[in-house]
Amino acid sequence: MRIAIDAMGGDFGSLPLVEGGLLALKKSNFTLVLVGDKNILSPLIPSKLSSKIEIIHCDDVITMEEGATSALKRKDSSIYVAIEMLKDRKVDAVVSAGHSGATMSLATLKIGRLKGVSRPAICTLMPRIDGKRSLVVDAGANVDCKPENLFEFAVMGYEYATAILKYPQARIGLLANGEEECKGNEITKTAFDFLKNHPNFVGNVEGNNIFDSSVEVIVCDGFTGNVALKASEGVADSIIYLLKHYIKSSPMGIFGALFMKNVFKKLKKQIDYAEYGGAPLLGVDGNVIICHGKSNAKAMKNAIFQAIATIENNINDRILQALHQYKI
Amino acid sequence: MRIAIDAMGGDFGSLPLVEGGLLALKKSNFTLVLVGDKNILSPLIPSKLSSKIEIIHCDDVITMEEGATSALKRKDSSIYVAIEMLKDRKVDAVVSAGHSGATMSLATLKIGRLKGVSRPAICTLMPRIDGKRSLVVDAGANVDCKPENLFEFAVMGYEYATAILKYPQARIGLLANGEEECKGNEITKTAFDFLKNHPNFVGNVEGNNIFDSSVEVIVCDGFTGNVALKASEGVADSIIYLLKHYIKSSPMGIFGALFMKNVFKKLKKQIDYAEYGGAPLLGVDGNVIICHGKSNAKAMKNAIFQAIATIENNINDRILQALHQYKI
Repeated sequence: MRIAIDAMGGDFGSLPLVEGGLLALKKSNFTLVLVGDKNILSPLIPSKLSSKIEIIHCDDVITMEEGATSALKRKDSSIYVAIEMLKDRKVDAVVSAGHSGATMSLATLKIGRLKGVSRPAICTLMPRIDGKRSLVVDAGANVDCKPENLFEFAVMGYEYATAILKYPQARIGLLANGEEECKGNEITKTAFDFLKNHPNFVGNVEGNNIFDSSVEVIVCDGFTGNVALKASEGVADSIIYLLKHYIKSSPMGIFGALFMKNVFKKLKKQIDYAEYGGAPLLGVDGNVIICHGKSNAKAMKNAIFQAIATIENNINDRILQALHQYKI
Repeated sequence: MRIAIDAMGGDFGSLPLVEGGLLALKKSNFTLVLVGDKNILSPLIPSKLSSKIEIIHCDDVITMEEGATSALKRKDSSIYVAIEMLKDRKVDAVVSAGHSGATMSLATLKIGRLKGVSRPAICTLMPRIDGKRSLVVDAGANVDCKPENLFEFAVMGYEYATAILKYPQARIGLLANGEEECKGNEITKTAFDFLKNHPNFVGNVEGNNIFDSSVEVIVCDGFTGNVALKASEGVADSIIYLLKHYIKSSPMGIFGALFMKNVFKKLKKQIDYAEYGGAPLLGVDGNVIICHGKSNAKAMKNAIFQAIATIENNINDRILQALHQYKI
C-alpha cells in the first residue's frame, strides 16, 4: 500500500506533516510517499525508515492565500503531483493539509467523479458526547446544492459510517431548522422526499444533533455545513478561552485547576480534531483525505490511518454499489 | 408604559413567566399586562403589586406541538389576544415565550410590516468572549431569503445594535463559508454587493466570528442562522455535560471542582441565554420580543427590560429612517 502526502501544504511547514507520517509508519505497514522539495524533506527522514519512504521532488507549492483555480495550471506543485500520482494509480491515497480548495478541484477534475455522483463532498468527522464520531456531509465543497446532491451525500456518508466508523446501522439525519417534516428550506424539503427512499433516514435534525449521539450521518449543503462547523469550533474555543481566563483570574481557581488536569485532558482529547485526522473527500474515483491546515503530527498520523482504512474497506466500491441501488 | 406577556406560553407553565414579570416590576416602572387564564394567573400575583398588574382573561392557548397557521384562527388564545392589544395600541410591547411560529405569524399578519421591510426577522443575541453580545439576524423566521432580505436584516440589526446594545459603530458581517469576497453561495454573493452600500459592512464572516468579538451584527438567512445557533447550543451543552461527567468520575476532579465553583459560575453567567432575555422580532410595526420556550424567571425579566429599551429607543422609527436612506 502506498500513501502520498502533500508534504509542503499545511500552516506549519513540512515538519509536522513528515512527523505524522513517521508516527504512522511505526504502527502500520505501508510506503510513505512524500511529495515536495527534497532539500527540505530529506533531512527530516531518519535513515532507519528510509526503505519505507519515497520522496517525489517538486519545486512549487500552492499557498493558502492563492485561488483554487490557479492550482489547475501549476503542474509542478506538490498537490498537483500527488493527485497525478493517484490518477495514475502510482499511489493508493493522497493526504493533504494544504489548500483544500486546490485539493478538491484537482481531485475532482483530474481523477474524476465516481459513476452516479454529481458532486463530490467533504465528509467531516465531529466529536459527540458518547465518545464516538458523527459525520457531516457536505462540510464545504458545494455551497449551492440541489436536492439530489443531498441524497448522494447521504448515501456516501452512510457507506463511510458503516464501513469505516463501523456503525452497524448508521442513522441519517437531514440538517434543518426544526425536526418536524414541515421544517426546512426549499432544497431540503425536496431532499427530504428523496431521502425517504433510504431505509436509514430518520428525518430532519437540528444543529445540536451533530453532537448528541442521536444520528451518525448529518446531511447538508456545504455552505450550511461549513457555517455549522465553524460556529461549533468557535463555541468550543470560546468556552476554553473563558475557562482559562476565569481560572487565571482567581487564586482558588488556579488551585482547583491543578486537581482538574486529568479532567481537562480527557475533555481536550474528546473534542480535539487531531484525534481523528482529516475529512475524506467522498465521490471522487480515488482516496483523498483533506486535513485541517493547522494539523499537527498526531492529526496527520490519524489522517493516514483513515486513508488506510478507506483503502482496506473499498469505500468507493461500496458507494458505487449503493448509488446503483437507489432510484430517486 | 404597558407591556403584555403571553402568560400561558412557555414550556414550564405560567409561574416563571409571571415571576419574571414581578422581578421586572421591582426594578422598572411600567404596567404588566398578563394575558391568559385569570384562574391560573390571579393566585400568582402578590396583592401589593396588584395596582401595577392587569389580567386580560382568555381561555385558549397555542401549544408548542400545534402548527403556526392554526394560531391565526384561534381568536381567544393568549398570544392572539396579546398581539391584538399591540395592534390596537393598548400595550406598547408583547413578550412571548410561547409558540414562536405563532407569535411571528400573528405579529406579521395582524400588526403588519414596517414600510420598506419585506420580511421581519428574528434578531438573536449571542454571547461573545469580551462579555458583550453579538446579534444574529435572521435566526429562524425566514428559511428562504433573497439578497435584498439579507440587506434589510443588516440594516435592522445595525439599528438595534447601536440603539439598544449601545455599540457606537457596530460592524456588520455577512455569514459565509469563508472570509474572502469570492466565498458564499448564490444568495450571499449578491447580498455582498448590496451590503457594500452600508458604511459599517466589513465583509464575509465565518461561524466562529459570532463569538470572537470581531463583528457585532451577523447577517444570514433564517435557515443558516437557526442551524448555527442550535449547533452552538449543542457544543456548549456537550462541553458542560462532558466536564461534569469527567469531574464526577474522578475524586481528584470532584475535589478540584470545589475550588472552581466561582469559575464555573462566571462561565455559566457569560454563556447563559437567560442573562439577556429574548430575541426581538424586527421589522414589524410594533415591539415584539420572542423568548426561548424554556425561559426561566430571569430570562423573562431580562426580556421585559429588552422590551422597555426597545420602546424607549424608538427602534422602529430608527429602522424606518435607515431603510429610507439606502437604495440597493
